[in-house]
Amino acid sequence: MIDVVKIKENETVDDLILSGLKIIQKTSSFRFSIDAVLLAHFVTVKKKDKVIDLGTGTGVIPLIISTREKELDLTGIEIQEEMAEMAKRSMLLNNLTDIKIIAGDFRKLGKEFNNKFNLVVSNPPYLPLNQGKISSIPEIALSRHEIKCTLGELMETAARLLKNQGRFTLIHRAERLGQIIALLQKEKLEPKRMRLVHSHFNKPANLVLLESVKGASPSLKVYEPLIIYNQDGSYTNEILNYYFGGEACAT
Amino acid sequence: MIDVVKIKENETVDDLILSGLKIIQKTSSFRFSIDAVLLAHFVTVKKKDKVIDLGTGTGVIPLIISTREKELDLTGIEIQEEMAEMAKRSMLLNNLTDIKIIAGDFRKLGKEFNNKFNLVVSNPPYLPLNQGKISSIPEIALSRHEIKCTLGELMETAARLLKNQGRFTLIHRAERLGQIIALLQKEKLEPKRMRLVHSHFNKPANLVLLESVKGASPSLKVYEPLIIYNQDGSYTNEILNYYFGGEACAT
Repeated sequence: MIDVVKIKENETVDDLILSGLKIIQKTSSFRFSIDAVLLAHFVTVKKKDKVIDLGTGTGVIPLIISTREKELDLTGIEIQEEMAEMAKRSMLLNNLTDIKIIAGDFRKLGKEFNNKFNLVVSNPPYLPLNQGKISSIPEIALSRHEIKCTLGELMETAARLLKNQGRFTLIHRAERLGQIIALLQKEKLEPKRMRLVHSHFNKPANLVLLESVKGASPSLKVYEPLIIYNQDGSYTNEILNYYFGGEACAT
Repeated sequence: MIDVVKIKENETVDDLILSGLKIIQKTSSFRFSIDAVLLAHFVTVKKKDKVIDLGTGTGVIPLIISTREKELDLTGIEIQEEMAEMAKRSMLLNNLTDIKIIAGDFRKLGKEFNNKFNLVVSNPPYLPLNQGKISSIPEIALSRHEIKCTLGELMETAARLLKNQGRFTLIHRAERLGQIIALLQKEKLEPKRMRLVHSHFNKPANLVLLESVKGASPSLKVYEPLIIYNQDGSYTNEILNYYFGGEACAT
């Protein structure tokens, strides 16, 4: 398939390793990170689930989720048109054109999308506008700072798109956990599964993986910590399994 | 001092190990657990701080906190009169009669206690009334189930007693973290420091240690996990340090 998909001059084709998947990324701007990989492995996903990724970027999350279950109905929505077009070509490159990529603002998705999804996922920008320097490269600025969408608007959209008992799963900075839980509960999204991500086992958590269920009763399962690096700086077995196979989801 | 403090027939004098402290406990009912020790080591405490422990039981938490800093003004309040009287004798036994023990309901503490404390701590009952069997032994029932006070009433009291920027630190079941954060934020107690407690490093979290600050801005530091047991079933070095000395608080 590769020879029929156009790769532009400022793009690279990168190997996702996982299941032979490939992804097109720009050389100069936002490139997918390990965070997307962690999220795609943490989500609970069931056969035939209808799934949407809010702010899909390069489309890496639907691509990885497609390997987790059969007969999924996968959609990614991305506000940056050029990025969305690139994600579409990545789907073509992997012969996964049943993964739909929408170029648009997820806050403006029509009523026909309401209460339709089993799973909403998102790896949103981590920083509010008043924190940290905003990048001069628009793609990087949009992926890091809440320029196009606040955390509250993300939760609102997730709650609106989900069926009752549907799941909203996100990855975010651990330091924002208090705000995240408050905003989720405002939308009746109840936190049910959480895993903290630490670079090393004896370091503070950098990131949090959190799955909430629309309309569920309160009771949160906090998994064992997810550790990225061994003491010698090599990746832990769990991280290696995410890339090189094996059953890697928290159980 | 021991010979002047009366020990009743159904009581034991137990060694807290730490700094040679001793504690009186009943043989048949609630005895302090490792949870109180974890909490007393997790709290941020500064010289001359005015501290109150809500539901102090045997008084174990103020006893341990008294070893963490100098010139503290420590109070414990306990609704069960017999338990409070026993806690008073433990203070006498340790020659720490400057630790005040109040027999009473903390929800009814008078206005003269409002906005007076730098630190409020609590190791409250972990179970709502609709969950788990309620013990027929009153002391155990009160220490396990929210019979005398709901979690919301605890947060309300903590917020009322604290000075602005004062700290409220509790230990609770990890599964109730969602509710805890929602209730704290309702009282403008902002979660600032959190540590999850796991029996083993590869097991889900059982408990959460959480320190909130009255009127603070949101930003939560999540520490490295606190692990109780090594793989071979022995206590980890951190836990041994809590009992046998060394600087053991998360930094």
